[in-house]
Amino acid sequence: MSATPESQAHMLATRLGYEPRDRALFVIALTHRSADGPNNERLEFLGDSVLNLLLSERLYREFPGASEGDLSRLRARLVSEEPLAEIALSMQLGDLLFLGSGEQKTGGFRRPSILADAFEAVCGALYLDGGMESVRERIEPLFESRIAALPEPSTLKDAKTRLQELLQANGHALPVYTVKSTSGEPHVQVFRVSCVVPHAGIETEGEGGSRRRAEQVAAQAALQALGHV
Amino acid sequence: MSATPESQAHMLATRLGYEPRDRALFVIALTHRSADGPNNERLEFLGDSVLNLLLSERLYREFPGASEGDLSRLRARLVSEEPLAEIALSMQLGDLLFLGSGEQKTGGFRRPSILADAFEAVCGALYLDGGMESVRERIEPLFESRIAALPEPSTLKDAKTRLQELLQANGHALPVYTVKSTSGEPHVQVFRVSCVVPHAGIETEGEGGSRRRAEQVAAQAALQALGHV
Repeated sequence: MSATPESQAHMLATRLGYEPRDRALFVIALTHRSADGPNNERLEFLGDSVLNLLLSERLYREFPGASEGDLSRLRARLVSEEPLAEIALSMQLGDLLFLGSGEQKTGGFRRPSILADAFEAVCGALYLDGGMESVRERIEPLFESRIAALPEPSTLKDAKTRLQELLQANGHALPVYTVKSTSGEPHVQVFRVSCVVPHAGIETEGEGGSRRRAEQVAAQAALQALGHV
Repeated sequence: MSATPESQAHMLATRLGYEPRDRALFVIALTHRSADGPNNERLEFLGDSVLNLLLSERLYREFPGASEGDLSRLRARLVSEEPLAEIALSMQLGDLLFLGSGEQKTGGFRRPSILADAFEAVCGALYLDGGMESVRERIEPLFESRIAALPEPSTLKDAKTRLQELLQANGHALPVYTVKSTSGEPHVQVFRVSCVVPHAGIETEGEGGSRRRAEQVAAQAALQALGHV
């Protein structure tokens, strides 16, 4: 490749429609930790918070009737690895990344985790370079189709509810939740709960700061084990 | 109490040194879900993201040599319930809250979780009313002493390292980590790892998207079981 860091950062800026003040920031955003030099992990840390706020605010305004739990579930659909990697793919971010030779050979530029992390790092660079306004202008539009496709908050259900409905719909016995142990001081207790799905012979476990939370984690694991993530 | 929502919101604004455009937002920020009317849970959702970005950016700038993991650990020391509740206490936020009668009787205005949540909601209201600049001006100073007291990032250690050092320092056998199961599709695998601390007869478990992550969770649970959170 005859691509230089400068030219790659320039390509990125062109795709974002943004003229960086500090192009070096964008070079770092494109640099995976497997490559030499400063890498994008710190920018990814920052960009994760930037994206979170961008989308939290958008959802807060877009869904005035949604509860806090609904908003969290909606946000998770936008900022998890899969959608971020898809957005990174749609802007062909993989072509612009600097990877170590090992990652290059094994196709690291196609790996969802590497793509999603780099996208977050780009958001971090954009925030430092142009502030939240630049992020809103350049990044929020990339989420429009996904925001438009979000389900009505009222139809969002937690893992326990989904597991119960899945089993009922198929005429199976309901899951059984059992507290296996609690540990820790009273105000920082950790509950460990098991979830048994009788017909499938599945037993999963979950941990959390409350029994309810631990049951949700166990139910989520059971949904996953049943192939319904 | 003869306090009205308006007068309480005015008191809050005075303590923040901020003149709200929309005082109703601050009334909502002060309203716990146990009280009647719109409560602060949605503003708490937003404020959590606001605080996260505020402090992520500050730490990013303050600790140029810190890794992503260090930055996350430092941030956790600032945005967990305990420091937020302490800051809420220092501004006597409890006196201003609207609580249902049950929560009032049982001293809900002193409960750390209620205080921390209300503080996040106030940050959300401030963000909506005056933008990130107002948050930076009014909220960041409340964290100064805590930021100044943060440890050097290089001294921060992850749970596995701390567990190992704790056991070594006391002449005990090292922990043994074992992968108990993996589940899920290859790209969304969940690892379940156990951590045995031989001298204490403790076995904890952890789950995560990688073996390394699951080991950290199990090590954290072991530290907790040993009374070293």
